[in-house]
Amino acid sequence: MIQKNALAYFVCLLFLAACSGNPSLNTEKTFEPILEIEQINSIMSLQQDAWNKGDIETFMQPYWKSDSLIFVGKSGINRGWQNTLDNYKKSYPSPEQMGRLEFENSSIEIFDQRRAWVVGKWTLYRTADTLGGHYTLNWNKKAGAWVITSDHSS
Amino acid sequence: MIQKNALAYFVCLLFLAACSGNPSLNTEKTFEPILEIEQINSIMSLQQDAWNKGDIETFMQPYWKSDSLIFVGKSGINRGWQNTLDNYKKSYPSPEQMGRLEFENSSIEIFDQRRAWVVGKWTLYRTADTLGGHYTLNWNKKAGAWVITSDHSS
Repeated sequence: MIQKNALAYFVCLLFLAACSGNPSLNTEKTFEPILEIEQINSIMSLQQDAWNKGDIETFMQPYWKSDSLIFVGKSGINRGWQNTLDNYKKSYPSPEQMGRLEFENSSIEIFDQRRAWVVGKWTLYRTADTLGGHYTLNWNKKAGAWVITSDHSS
Repeated sequence: MIQKNALAYFVCLLFLAACSGNPSLNTEKTFEPILEIEQINSIMSLQQDAWNKGDIETFMQPYWKSDSLIFVGKSGINRGWQNTLDNYKKSYPSPEQMGRLEFENSSIEIFDQRRAWVVGKWTLYRTADTLGGHYTLNWNKKAGAWVITSDHSS
């Protein structure tokens, strides 16, 4: 089921890439920051949806699948995609604990074709409580797709 | 006195720039990531020294002097160099409250000639207590000098 959702996520990404702007202009040489912002917003929206379905694996898809991924959280600096997934699963073992996630981006800066940076606010609405904080995400375009290479969440 | 220290800071920066590598190679076209890392480390070391002398203005010199500077801290997202300075002064009104600052960089990535990113750990040793946390800094080279354009500290 999880693999099916991850596949659906990639199909959505392909669809987003195909829809972002005039296809005849949408070559590797074309660079429209506004389209890159749209792509990142869409990816984060898919992440939100995945989280809210209790599907951490699909939520984790846009994170760089590398041991060099950096996640700075309450427990300090953690490295690696698998570690980050494991930590998320440990902290949020059930849909009740995952609650309903809301991202609210405050700033998105597209530095160039391959680098972007996002600052925003996250809120987790749960039955028992509401958690919240802020994130700084560094994004990198790898093999044509935006991935999060570092996440500082507090 | 503060202005004198800020001037001394800039003289140190010029000295660092002059010392970083073979001067005959040190043109704008030369790009040696290791030299950029050295420069950023040296700037952070000067910041540490300034803080430990109770001089927040000099500590703040490498921050981008712009209303677009972003500082994400415990109170959320704040914008602007002046706001950031004011917040530091409010939070640390005396040398006793400033204590002794220690930066410990964990990762420095030089993306290209103009962009870099640093993740590390900060500790504040004070008589009454010890504070600590982590930072993610985005650096940008502007007018030949590295400046911090965003700081997420938690």
